[in-house]
Amino acid sequence: MARDGARRSKRKRERKIDLQMPVKQPRRPFAPVEILTPEQVEDIHQASLKVLRDTGIHFMGRKARDFLARCEGVSVDQEAEIVRFQPETVARAMASVPGQFRLHARNPARDLEFGVGRIAFANVVTPPYVEDSERGHRVGSMADMEELIRLIHTIDAVGMFYGYPVEPQDLDPLTRHLHAYRAHAVLSDKLWRGYTLGDDRICDAIEMARIARGVDEETNKSQPSLLGNVTTNSPLRIDEPMGDGLMIMGAAKQPVSITCFGMAGAISPISLAGSLVQQNAEILAAAVLSQLANPGAPLIYGSFASSVHMRSGALPFGNPEFVRLTIAAGQLARRYGMPYKSAGATCAKAVDAQAAYETQMAMWAGIVSGADIMVHAAGFMESALTVNYEKLMVDTEMIQMLAASLKPIDCSTPSLAVDTIHQVGPGGHFFAHPQTLEHYETAFYEPFLSDWDNRQNWLDGGATTAHERATPLWKELLESYRQPKLEPAIREELDAYVARRAQEILASQAA
Amino acid sequence: MARDGARRSKRKRERKIDLQMPVKQPRRPFAPVEILTPEQVEDIHQASLKVLRDTGIHFMGRKARDFLARCEGVSVDQEAEIVRFQPETVARAMASVPGQFRLHARNPARDLEFGVGRIAFANVVTPPYVEDSERGHRVGSMADMEELIRLIHTIDAVGMFYGYPVEPQDLDPLTRHLHAYRAHAVLSDKLWRGYTLGDDRICDAIEMARIARGVDEETNKSQPSLLGNVTTNSPLRIDEPMGDGLMIMGAAKQPVSITCFGMAGAISPISLAGSLVQQNAEILAAAVLSQLANPGAPLIYGSFASSVHMRSGALPFGNPEFVRLTIAAGQLARRYGMPYKSAGATCAKAVDAQAAYETQMAMWAGIVSGADIMVHAAGFMESALTVNYEKLMVDTEMIQMLAASLKPIDCSTPSLAVDTIHQVGPGGHFFAHPQTLEHYETAFYEPFLSDWDNRQNWLDGGATTAHERATPLWKELLESYRQPKLEPAIREELDAYVARRAQEILASQAA
Repeated sequence: MARDGARRSKRKRERKIDLQMPVKQPRRPFAPVEILTPEQVEDIHQASLKVLRDTGIHFMGRKARDFLARCEGVSVDQEAEIVRFQPETVARAMASVPGQFRLHARNPARDLEFGVGRIAFANVVTPPYVEDSERGHRVGSMADMEELIRLIHTIDAVGMFYGYPVEPQDLDPLTRHLHAYRAHAVLSDKLWRGYTLGDDRICDAIEMARIARGVDEETNKSQPSLLGNVTTNSPLRIDEPMGDGLMIMGAAKQPVSITCFGMAGAISPISLAGSLVQQNAEILAAAVLSQLANPGAPLIYGSFASSVHMRSGALPFGNPEFVRLTIAAGQLARRYGMPYKSAGATCAKAVDAQAAYETQMAMWAGIVSGADIMVHAAGFMESALTVNYEKLMVDTEMIQMLAASLKPIDCSTPSLAVDTIHQVGPGGHFFAHPQTLEHYETAFYEPFLSDWDNRQNWLDGGATTAHERATPLWKELLESYRQPKLEPAIREELDAYVARRAQEILASQAA
Repeated sequence: MARDGARRSKRKRERKIDLQMPVKQPRRPFAPVEILTPEQVEDIHQASLKVLRDTGIHFMGRKARDFLARCEGVSVDQEAEIVRFQPETVARAMASVPGQFRLHARNPARDLEFGVGRIAFANVVTPPYVEDSERGHRVGSMADMEELIRLIHTIDAVGMFYGYPVEPQDLDPLTRHLHAYRAHAVLSDKLWRGYTLGDDRICDAIEMARIARGVDEETNKSQPSLLGNVTTNSPLRIDEPMGDGLMIMGAAKQPVSITCFGMAGAISPISLAGSLVQQNAEILAAAVLSQLANPGAPLIYGSFASSVHMRSGALPFGNPEFVRLTIAAGQLARRYGMPYKSAGATCAKAVDAQAAYETQMAMWAGIVSGADIMVHAAGFMESALTVNYEKLMVDTEMIQMLAASLKPIDCSTPSLAVDTIHQVGPGGHFFAHPQTLEHYETAFYEPFLSDWDNRQNWLDGGATTAHERATPLWKELLESYRQPKLEPAIREELDAYVARRAQEILASQAA
């Protein structure tokens, strides 16, 4: 290939970050795998129903208990705050969970679909610390969060913000959510998630997402803009803000992922089946509350279950128990016709082989389990305590590679290439064949961070590790950031909303 | 847990290497995934038949051509050395390929089964270089190979030696195979592979594997001891030693994996479908030769196909094209009822995140594609140019994690734990529950190389990377090596065989 050299030097003038591929929501070309037999799925389902009927769930919020006390087939012990559900009630409530829905971003190109066989990837959620090779490990601030929103905005592989990419710890906790949501709404046109931290705050999230889209409340109900998340408090507890959040989000027709953060051996049974039974009971309880209060409210079945390292108390991720629980939970989600959320995760502290293999174990588990969204999939380090810029680049490459691996194989007659094979014949080569020359620029995945060079070139280039190569990449991406257009009127409305609500909150505290 | 501290300090006295898990051949609990529709599998099959009928295969060996010229439905152009196959002949020959077989090690506990839904893992094959953190990167020698055989012998996760773990370049190439096979047979009781490097050498391999097991020729035929491999020379060529090896191994009823080392865009079409068509035609041609010569000879369908990086000529591994080709080739293997071989691989030069994510992409592809054996899965660096000791430790952890991830989930009544969940109740914990105390030592995967500790402990321990932690691990493993027992008479017979054959070979060269 005489033109090889010319091609390569042209390529070298291009920015590495231009090699990003548009990922968004690749379609899974195969059926999800199954680690449970259909009979085992049913056994877990039935065992969960027993837990809901006989043991019950501690609903800590008065509003949820009072509502449930009025529902048929639900018995509420107000003193013990325990709610028990009859199996028929669970079945009736679960029948109204929608199997699919679309989440509407302020830029429609950023919309995401759930329950349609596609998978989206989202960032690590709310770590308290942030780290990069240049500035070290530090407590997260608003400036860090804004920079991370800008950075993640530029990364095609991250489909939405599933929570603050770092906790802005320098902001007053009372009004933090207002400034954080405003930053998401203004600095990016990707979807973002609201936290269910009490009635007023979740209403703020719903309202700000609606304002950013510039739609009225009715449109916002039929075309939801905000994803919420409710995490159960294992074992068998649903906190007041979580129960309230489910009802408020449901009334506004905004989707909620119900996540059980199980830890087998600690806050769920040491047996994986038992952990699945408890997780399923908790998710069903939250889903039943949601559906009884607002039939048809969109929900996601969320798994973030692992085992505790019994010798040390450590909480590993991407370990074999995490993988098995992720695959099994996907089967349970499908049992109820619910979209499914998995997570990429690691407990590594260094951006090294362990960080990559643990994260990728979790990622593959999510892919083969049929997840609709994989959260914690970008920047995650140290069991979600830290977001790391270099790891964000490693994860970007891994997500891109996974997404590209899901592409179907074109088997049209020209692609089967019987004529090409005949023309080249035994002992020939395909470099110069017209079919190769026509397709060589786009046929294959182009690496983003990986070094595919030979040893001598790699040595001449400084014998870098992936961790070292990642630093200039995120700097390039940050430089490439352009703030997405937002109508001035919308921005003013957002700013006014934040100012008014901040004043209200601070005034009510002072009173 | 008051006893936690005591348990932990007891644990610390144990050797890390005792945390190895017995891997051998985990059973895949789910059906393989499919990236091709059944119609696409058939399209590729039919296209391959056209290639075999119209274009043909260049069989470079006279013996294979002469044999095939006598077969019905095969036409041989002796001048051009091209062999063409009628579709009916292919179908007839492929009907006799056995769907499963057992490979017998000199220690029956090391036997491996193929075609039964289990997967075994094997080492990187014949890299010219060897590397570790203490001695650096260097040309492989016999001393290196012997040390690597000892090391890999101690690693449960590696089920067999699929070729020399490093090329012993200081040995005379004429007699190298004798000394290398003797080292495998004496230093380990695991299975090893013979190279199809000409008639005499493959006969040496068969004979030495038979002697090491202490069985006669008839027993060795009914209970094969040696795996061979034939790699086609793409496009559409089968070298003389490969064709001869197929016939000799088949006559001795020893299994052979037929591997196509495809490189889309270079030695196979740039379209993945075209690459699969060509690969399939080559593997079918070799399989048909084997079956026509020795119906029922055990075979393995082997994929090691990737794409060439068109901009640089680099050959990536674990990239998305590799993953898609691996999954698709597994479907083709099943189309013919053949056991399937995939490969773990990377082009990384550093034992870093890239080495881990590329290798794990390839490993997961092998797992979900239904592979019976995954070769190149331990120690592989730099596109098989180097075996790296630290990478061997990373791969051991990854194989162990994958194997543990395949364990089915026990859903017996005690494991469903409805009573346990009821006893602990909302807001409780499971640490002290009798079910936890009964199972905590064995319930979960125990890491081998990974650091699951918190940041402060990790910092206090030197803030190590996986690469750094790997060095003391392989040293511990090497220290733990004990040479497996071998009858003195067998050892003498092996030594005598090597001495006699070395003399014959050198004498014939001198003549």
